[in-house]
Amino acid sequence: MRKGRDLSFFDLVSIDQVTPEDLGLLYDVARRFREYKTYKFSFNKGSSQVNAFFEPSTRTSSSFDLAAKQLSMDTAGVSSNSSVEKGESYLDTVQTIDSYNVKTIVIRSKESGVPAVAARYTQASIINAGDGWHEHPTQALLDGLTMLDHCKSKDMKGRVVVIVGDIMHSRVFGSLVRLLKTLKAEVRISAPLTLIPEDVEKFGVKWYGKVEEALTGADVVYALRVQSERGANGFIPTLREYSKMFGISRKRLDLAKKDAILMHPGPVIRDIDVHSALAAVDEQSYILRQVENGMAVRKALLWLIVDRIDGKKKTFTRK
Amino acid sequence: MRKGRDLSFFDLVSIDQVTPEDLGLLYDVARRFREYKTYKFSFNKGSSQVNAFFEPSTRTSSSFDLAAKQLSMDTAGVSSNSSVEKGESYLDTVQTIDSYNVKTIVIRSKESGVPAVAARYTQASIINAGDGWHEHPTQALLDGLTMLDHCKSKDMKGRVVVIVGDIMHSRVFGSLVRLLKTLKAEVRISAPLTLIPEDVEKFGVKWYGKVEEALTGADVVYALRVQSERGANGFIPTLREYSKMFGISRKRLDLAKKDAILMHPGPVIRDIDVHSALAAVDEQSYILRQVENGMAVRKALLWLIVDRIDGKKKTFTRK
Amino acid sequence: MRKGRDLSFFDLVSIDQVTPEDLGLLYDVARRFREYKTYKFSFNKGSSQVNAFFEPSTRTSSSFDLAAKQLSMDTAGVSSNSSVEKGESYLDTVQTIDSYNVKTIVIRSKESGVPAVAARYTQASIINAGDGWHEHPTQALLDGLTMLDHCKSKDMKGRVVVIVGDIMHSRVFGSLVRLLKTLKAEVRISAPLTLIPEDVEKFGVKWYGKVEEALTGADVVYALRVQSERGANGFIPTLREYSKMFGISRKRLDLAKKDAILMHPGPVIRDIDVHSALAAVDEQSYILRQVENGMAVRKALLWLIVDRIDGKKKTFTRK
Repeated sequence: MRKGRDLSFFDLVSIDQVTPEDLGLLYDVARRFREYKTYKFSFNKGSSQVNAFFEPSTRTSSSFDLAAKQLSMDTAGVSSNSSVEKGESYLDTVQTIDSYNVKTIVIRSKESGVPAVAARYTQASIINAGDGWHEHPTQALLDGLTMLDHCKSKDMKGRVVVIVGDIMHSRVFGSLVRLLKTLKAEVRISAPLTLIPEDVEKFGVKWYGKVEEALTGADVVYALRVQSERGANGFIPTLREYSKMFGISRKRLDLAKKDAILMHPGPVIRDIDVHSALAAVDEQSYILRQVENGMAVRKALLWLIVDRIDGKKKTFTRK
Repeated sequence: MRKGRDLSFFDLVSIDQVTPEDLGLLYDVARRFREYKTYKFSFNKGSSQVNAFFEPSTRTSSSFDLAAKQLSMDTAGVSSNSSVEKGESYLDTVQTIDSYNVKTIVIRSKESGVPAVAARYTQASIINAGDGWHEHPTQALLDGLTMLDHCKSKDMKGRVVVIVGDIMHSRVFGSLVRLLKTLKAEVRISAPLTLIPEDVEKFGVKWYGKVEEALTGADVVYALRVQSERGANGFIPTLREYSKMFGISRKRLDLAKKDAILMHPGPVIRDIDVHSALAAVDEQSYILRQVENGMAVRKALLWLIVDRIDGKKKTFTRK
Repeated sequence: MRKGRDLSFFDLVSIDQVTPEDLGLLYDVARRFREYKTYKFSFNKGSSQVNAFFEPSTRTSSSFDLAAKQLSMDTAGVSSNSSVEKGESYLDTVQTIDSYNVKTIVIRSKESGVPAVAARYTQASIINAGDGWHEHPTQALLDGLTMLDHCKSKDMKGRVVVIVGDIMHSRVFGSLVRLLKTLKAEVRISAPLTLIPEDVEKFGVKWYGKVEEALTGADVVYALRVQSERGANGFIPTLREYSKMFGISRKRLDLAKKDAILMHPGPVIRDIDVHSALAAVDEQSYILRQVENGMAVRKALLWLIVDRIDGKKKTFTRK
C-alpha cells in the first residue's frame, strides 16, 4: 500500500507541512489500517513513544496510545502534574524524554507553539496533538479523510463545508480550514461575531451571521464546541441563547443537501452545539466515523514516520 | 480447559446474568490461569481494551489492566478528568471509545446504571467494574471462587456467610448477595440499622444487631469498609464507636467456626473494619487470596468474552 | 555480557546494598543495553511490574515503565489517588499488588522507609524509586555510570565531585554520597548552611560556604534543585539570592577543571540551580546523558533482578 513512498516531513507540527502527496499516502495507508481494526502489526516493534499531554485529553491521548501499541510500539505517558509544576521548562521536559531515545513524542500543550519549538531540539519526531488555540493537525487529517470518503473524491472542489461555532478558541478550526483550502472546498463559517477572530478572512472563508443562510446547500456541516474552559462563555449572552441561534437542529440540518453529513470533533455538548437527537445516532451524523478514522490516520502517521523506506532521519543530533 | 464452552452473555453488567454453567466455566478457566500466574498468553492478541474508570480505583483498574495485557491485549486508560468534565455525556464518551473498535470496555462509574446503558449502544463488550452503590460483579465472582475453593465444594449449601459493615453504600454487597443466594449459602448481615437498606429482606438475608450472634458458627466472615467517601460517616456515631461494636477482632472471629475464613474486598481500614493483627497476616485471613483470585477471574472473563468458540457476536451494530 | 553473574540482592532499597561486584555487573549490562536503545528484548517476557508512585513523578516513572516494557514485561501503574486516600495503609496496598504475582514493584513515596518495610512483606522484588528525603538508589547508579564513563575509569579515586544545592531535602544526595565514597571520590558540598543537614560530616564530605572555593579543580559539578515543594524556600532568603550565591554560571563552571562535566538529577530550575545557557546545550552539560543512562541502568537492574541465572528467590512466602 506504500509503494515505496515516504512522507515529506519528520515532525508534524502544522497541517501546512502536509503536501498533496503526503495526504494521498496517509489516506491510502489509513484506509488499509481501518480495515484491519485493532490488529497488532509488528511494523514499529522496537520503537517507543511518549505521550506528553500537558493538557488533559481523553480521546486524542487514548487514540494515539492505542495506535502506537497496535503497531507494537512501547509507550509511556507524561502528564501535566509533575516536573513542569516543579518549575522545569517544557523544553527541558521534552529533551529529557528525547534522551530515552524514543522515536515519537506526541505533545498537547495549553500554549501555542510548544510542539514547534520542541521539534527543533529533539531527535525524536514531534507530533502536535493540539497546541493552545493554534493547530491540531491530526484532527484535520481525520476530518479530511471522513469528508473525502463521503464525497468519494480526491478533493472537495465544488463542495460546501460549513463550520459552525466557537471558531476563535478552536485549534481544530486552525488546522481544518488550511486543509480545506488545499482540498479546494468552499468554506463558510457561522457564529456570533464575538466568536470570530478578527483576521479570519485571510483563510478565504465567508462569515454568515445567520446560520440558516450558511447551511443552505451545504455538503458538510461541521459543528464546534463552545469552549467554556477557554473562557468562551464570556463572548456569548448565554449557552441557551447560543443554542437557539446556532445549535444544529433537525430543522437546520435539513437546509443542507439531502445527503449532507454532520461532523463534530468532540466532545459534543448535547443540546448546545448539536441537538441530542442528531448527535451520535442520526443517519447523517458521521461523528463516530471521525473517531474511527482518527485511529486509522494516527496509525498511518506513526508507521510512516517511524519506519521510513528511504532511511532518512531528522538532522538534529543530541550532543 | 474450556471443552468447547462459551459464556451465555456478551456484556457483564450484573451478576444476575451469570448462570450456574457460566460460573462453572469461569471458575474452571480461572483456576488454570491462577496456576500460570503472570504468564503471557497470546489468546487475545490483536484485540484492544479501554479501561474507563470515571471514579478513581487502584486495585480493580490495575487488575483489569494487567489481566488484559497478560492475554496480549493492547490497553488504554480513560479517567474522570477530561471529556466528561467538558460536558460530554457518559454515553458519548463510551460510544467514542467503542469507535476505536476495541473488544472490551471496562467501566467504573459513580452513578448506578452507566454500564447497563452503555452495553445497549456499543459493539464492544461492556464489563461493569463497579457502578455507584449498585453492582460490582467481578468482585462477587472472585469472592465466590475464594469461598468455593475454601469449602472444596460446588456450592455453599449449608454454609453460613456473615457480611458485616456498611451494606447500604456497598456495591460489593449488591452483587455478592445475589451470587450467594444462587450458591445456596445462608447469608447473615450485621451492621448498625442505619447502614442497612430498607428493602434488604428481599435478598433473603437475616439482620443481626449484635455481631456476636451473627458470627456464631459462621464459615465465612466478610467485612465491608465504612465508605466515608459516600457519606457513611453520617450514619454512625463515630468510627471508633463503629469499630467497638462491629469491627472484626480476634475474639469475635473466634466465635465463627474453627476453620472459618476472613474476607474483605479492600481497601481495609485497619482497626475500624478489621483489627490490624488480622488484616493480611492471620492464617484465617483470605484477603490477599481474594486479590490473587481477582486477577485469575478477570483473565478468565476477558478471554471467554473476547475469544468465543461459537463465533457469536453482540447484535448491536454501529451505523 | 553477564558471564553467569547475578546480583547480591533481591530488592533494591538502599545504595548500601550494592557491592562493587554488583556495580560492575550492572554497568557492564547497562552499557550494552544503552547501545541497543529502545530495542525490544524478550528477556523478561511473562513477568509483570507495577509502578507504585505515591508521589508524582515524570521522568523516573516513565523511565522505569519504558525500561520494563522494552524487556517485554507487562506493567500497570498505581498512583497516589485512590486506596491510600480511602484510608488503606501503604503496606496493605503493596501486599495487594504483590498478590498479583508481579515480579517487581517500583515504589516512590513521600515518606522515608516505605520501600524498606514493603520489601519485608512481599514476594515481588521492591525497587526504591525515591523515598522521602532518604534515598534514590537508581539515580545514584545512573550518576555513577555517567561519571565513570566520563573518567574512563573503574573508580573515582583522585577525582573531585562537588555537590551544590539543597542537600538537606535531597534523597538524591543520600544515595549519591554513599556511592561516591565507595568509588573513592573526594566529595565537596556547597550550599547555604541552612540547607546542610547537621550530621553531614559522617559521610566524609567537606562543606564550603563559598561555592567558588568548592568548584576549584573539580572533575564533576553536580547541582541539586532547591526543593520548594519540600519547604526549602523557608531556608534561604530568596531564590534570587540563592542563585546569585550558588547558581552554576559559566564563570563558576570555568573554575572547575577544563574537561569537568556538569550534572543535575532534574528537573532543572533554569537560572536558579543552573544558568540557562548551560542547562542542556553546553558541551560540558551531561544532564541529558544522565537521562539516557538512567534508562540503561534501570533496564539492567530489571533484567538482573527478574531473570536470575542461579534461580534463587526472595525467602518471603505469602501465606
